[in-house]
Amino acid sequence: MRVAFQGERGAYSEEAILQHFASAEPVPRVSLREVFAAVERGEVELGLVPVENTLEGSIVQTFDLLLESPLKVRAEIVLRIVHCLIANPGVSPTDIKRVYSHPQALGQCRAYLEEHGYEAVAAYDTAGSVKMLREEGLRDAAAIASVRAAEAYGMAVLARGIETHPENYTRFLVLGHADHPPTGRDKTSIAFSIDHAPGALYRALRGFAEQEVNLTKIESRPLIGRPWEYVFYLDFEGHRAEPRVRRALEGLETCSRFVKVLGSYPRADAQMGAPRESR
Amino acid sequence: MRVAFQGERGAYSEEAILQHFASAEPVPRVSLREVFAAVERGEVELGLVPVENTLEGSIVQTFDLLLESPLKVRAEIVLRIVHCLIANPGVSPTDIKRVYSHPQALGQCRAYLEEHGYEAVAAYDTAGSVKMLREEGLRDAAAIASVRAAEAYGMAVLARGIETHPENYTRFLVLGHADHPPTGRDKTSIAFSIDHAPGALYRALRGFAEQEVNLTKIESRPLIGRPWEYVFYLDFEGHRAEPRVRRALEGLETCSRFVKVLGSYPRADAQMGAPRESR
Repeated sequence: MRVAFQGERGAYSEEAILQHFASAEPVPRVSLREVFAAVERGEVELGLVPVENTLEGSIVQTFDLLLESPLKVRAEIVLRIVHCLIANPGVSPTDIKRVYSHPQALGQCRAYLEEHGYEAVAAYDTAGSVKMLREEGLRDAAAIASVRAAEAYGMAVLARGIETHPENYTRFLVLGHADHPPTGRDKTSIAFSIDHAPGALYRALRGFAEQEVNLTKIESRPLIGRPWEYVFYLDFEGHRAEPRVRRALEGLETCSRFVKVLGSYPRADAQMGAPRESR
Repeated sequence: MRVAFQGERGAYSEEAILQHFASAEPVPRVSLREVFAAVERGEVELGLVPVENTLEGSIVQTFDLLLESPLKVRAEIVLRIVHCLIANPGVSPTDIKRVYSHPQALGQCRAYLEEHGYEAVAAYDTAGSVKMLREEGLRDAAAIASVRAAEAYGMAVLARGIETHPENYTRFLVLGHADHPPTGRDKTSIAFSIDHAPGALYRALRGFAEQEVNLTKIESRPLIGRPWEYVFYLDFEGHRAEPRVRRALEGLETCSRFVKVLGSYPRADAQMGAPRESR
């Protein structure tokens, strides 16, 4: 089973793939768009993309790509993000002047970097920074990435858990040509558009309330160039094949410009916002 | 009128202040938290914070600070973001090896940077990068920031509008000790929390539908450490002093754990998602 992800070997996305699939071959791609394209063209069976992070919020580009793509969501994965300071073996923390990583990871570790007087340098991704340090043999620089990235490139972990906020989870979606059959403990993601008018969202949600479908996430996005139209992303508990979900979606269709079912999939055990003790 | 913002002279936030207020003295602060604190402690009359961007989505930290703070939202400002490549006078595009800016701005101009083979270097903020270039007299580096930043530091604009997507707007909120009196063309922002149960959001929105209050944005955020509780951020048209809005809020209170009115304020003329022609 080949699963495309955005980034280099050792990326958090690769960690999510290996955590979720008993046996899978992670296949790196340079962008989220290329992950979608690799699945659409059949170069890989599945793709994995990040969709929201506790500290940074939603990954808007993933939503925009989901809206365009014929692919379906067939799983969700929630991964705790633990950032490490990684350097070439033998490098001491006092040798370090610059720290390379993806801008989001640099931001999440800003307090640590400032405390140690390290200069933050933006790089293409977290694991790619570790690879670069190794290839160039830098001894006055470090990278921020996962433990797995250090292992992948034979590098030393100088500090672990250097993020400012330990409650740092990323939720990933797994994409394929079809979604997942019902398991009895499922979620569904949809996108829909309604007119910008009083009561429009209330009417759109009526079917979900009547059918006792539990919502887990909602987010509105303005449609660029269409001033009074919005697209909503909605996650809820249940599978699209369940009669109550079907009835709720039929109700939504009567009052929406469009409804797109992005996919039904088994719920991840860990959920964003859950206390750490319960994971 | 002193208005605190996050960043250095020439930041997009400063541009938003000067666009909105006929006469205001922008006062820089190092973090969003310090902007809130400066207003709360009375060091300035008002504060300005970014709340959402077309390309990057919501600025989650601003929402979290709004939820905690006693301050009220008293205005919104929508600013078109135009990124420029800025260097010391006399520097040619072919001299440039590195480009400094805030990670978000680097991300928004990634295609341009890659096309020209420039290395992206993360810095504290956009305008601060311009200031640093000037202070250090660098001739092999540039920064990404606003035209205003170039003017503020007497630097040269080598290219204008280098962002990948021209539809790049940031929405800012102005914070004070009280919100704005009704103008007849207002918006209100609130936060509320409801149980994680079927129909809970539907019931929460009933009052808004019955009172014909038009919603303009909704977003759910999990409450960290409280697994089955969510906080919702909701924007709608109308002022909290209007009877129909009061009745809608009373209806919401009967079915929520808490409701916090973040403030009522005049609607900005420009809205995110509106076509460029109409601005």
